[in-house]
Parts: sequence; C-alpha cells; structure tokens
Amino acid sequence: MFLDMAMSLDGCISGPDGEDAGLHDWYFAETGAAEDIKAELLTRIGAIILGHTAFGTAPDGFDTEYRVPHYVLTHTPLPTVKRGGATFIFVTDSIESALSQARAAAGEKDVCVAGGAQTAQAFLNAGLVDELQLHLAPMLLGGGLRLFGDLDTVTHLERVRVVQSQHATHLTYRLREK
Amino acid sequence: MFLDMAMSLDGCISGPDGEDAGLHDWYFAETGAAEDIKAELLTRIGAIILGHTAFGTAPDGFDTEYRVPHYVLTHTPLPTVKRGGATFIFVTDSIESALSQARAAAGEKDVCVAGGAQTAQAFLNAGLVDELQLHLAPMLLGGGLRLFGDLDTVTHLERVRVVQSQHATHLTYRLREK
Repeated sequence: MFLDMAMSLDGCISGPDGEDAGLHDWYFAETGAAEDIKAELLTRIGAIILGHTAFGTAPDGFDTEYRVPHYVLTHTPLPTVKRGGATFIFVTDSIESALSQARAAAGEKDVCVAGGAQTAQAFLNAGLVDELQLHLAPMLLGGGLRLFGDLDTVTHLERVRVVQSQHATHLTYRLREK
Repeated sequence: MFLDMAMSLDGCISGPDGEDAGLHDWYFAETGAAEDIKAELLTRIGAIILGHTAFGTAPDGFDTEYRVPHYVLTHTPLPTVKRGGATFIFVTDSIESALSQARAAAGEKDVCVAGGAQTAQAFLNAGLVDELQLHLAPMLLGGGLRLFGDLDTVTHLERVRVVQSQHATHLTYRLREK
C-alpha cells in the first residue's frame, strides 16, 4: 500500500485557513513529467482509502478519474454510494479492515491512501505503509494541517525516485524495516 | 542571504528527544554529490548567522571548517570569542543588525543563516531570505523541532536545483517576490 499526497515544503496539506494556494497545481498541469505521474497513478491504483474529512471536503458534483472502490473511514455507518463514477464504501471498524477490503477490491493493482493527515498518520503509526509518494510543492504554507504531525517513532526511508515537474518535485520513498 | 539546513521529510531539524538520527549524514559522507555541495558551501559562505541555541549545542572542543565570522543572536551581551578557528560575535540588538554586520564581513561572498528553527523563522518572517537550501534526509523524525513552525504568510518559491546524494535530496529554492 502506498500513501500519495501533495505537501508544501513546510509539511502542510492545506494552509491555516484551509487554502490550497496552488498545492495541487501539478495534478492539473497535464504536461510533461506531471502528466506521466498522473497516468502512472491512474494505472496503478485499484482502490483508494480516504478519511471522512478528506471525503467530506470533496466539492459538490464531485467527479473522479479514479473509477475504483473508495473506502472511507468514518465513525458513522453509511450505505455505499456511487458518486461521479466511483463507489464509496464506508468503513467503521478499523484501518486494518479498510486496508483488507481495499486490497481484495484492488486485486493485482495497488491500494492508495490519499488523505487526509489523520488517516495518513494512523496508517504510518500502524506500520502499514510500504511506500510514500509526495508531490512537494514549491511553497511554505506557514501553518495549517501538517501531513505527518507527531508520529510514534522515527521512520527511516529509502529514496526510490525523484522527478521534477513544473509545479512540484515528486519524491518516492520505500519504508525500511525497523 | 541564504538559509541552509538539514531537515527530515516531516520538516524537523531534530527529533522529539533532540536526536539527529542521521539527519546530517550527508554532510559527513564526503563522497559524490554531497562532497560537491559541501565544497560549494565552503567557497560561497563569507559569514554565518546562528541562533544562540544552535550555537550553544555545538559540542565541546567545537571546530568548524567555516573559518569565517559567525554572528550569534543572543539576549546576553558577550565578548567576541575565537573557537576552533572561527570568530564568534554576539549580536543583541536585532536580526537586521546581525545581517548587516554579516554582509559587511562577507564582502563578495554570501551570508548563510545556518540555524536554528527560531532564527530561520525570524529571518523568513522579516522577508530577509533570498534563497533556501534544504538537505532533505530520508526519514520521518515523527516530531521534535520543526524548521518552519508557523510563519506569518504563504511564501511562494521557485525551484532552482535538485541534487541527489546518497544520504539526502538537496533542494534549492529562490524566494519569490510577493
């Protein structure tokens, strides 16, 4: 399973007032190296896991190019819904359960945890993340929601790839065994 | 003036217990791209600015390859001292004063703000930083001292260079005019 998120150089996934400030510009640039990375994600991902906040902040009339099952972590049981070509399944028991369901749905493809910060930290603290892919935006948001917050342990990483596109530096790391 | 510091992927310059955990390994590797970057720093820097905490945590018998004037920000006036081949001048009035003294001492060379977090943030908030160079270590420290903390504004950056060495990804950014 891999974690894939856009982050500012100061480690935030949204600013003090929830602003994006261009953090996701790389994704919408649709050119060069960014386009290749986006195509790679679309091919690679067989299921997505999201926190309920990340899901809840999706705009009205939400559509996604990722027409795969989305597992949304929540405390309130909700019926499965279809939204913009994707299925959203609400998981209330545990992150392990969400991952196991997502893995079964993804088959040969990979499971992506796509946010938000709380969800990313829960998976990291549980030792369930195999790979991190960060789209590092050239900005200091100056505060806001920190992707990594305070984690339980020091985690050593192995750099797999660095790609530069117009609006981001795309960093991929494998998590090392402790 | 440029800011030059080693940082973990989660934005920390030391861990929850003050640990380094290998954050500065790149500097001591003395091979390949890291050696070139170190040589570049040694050539480029004509004066260094440090916070008193960063200065105070230097080990006993401290030596530095940077035999240039070091301006240490402090609240307590202290006489200038020589330590390990470098001169340390204590500045009590303001960061602007430290920068102006450092610039005069550096002559044709550049001034480097080398830490710590509080000092870096003061210079960033005052709009006095022209360039950021971060040596991004492949690790999540999980907490500790955050380099950027909470800043006053969103700062947009222009990526100048990305260099990969064995123990770090060296990122250089120019600060954009607001």
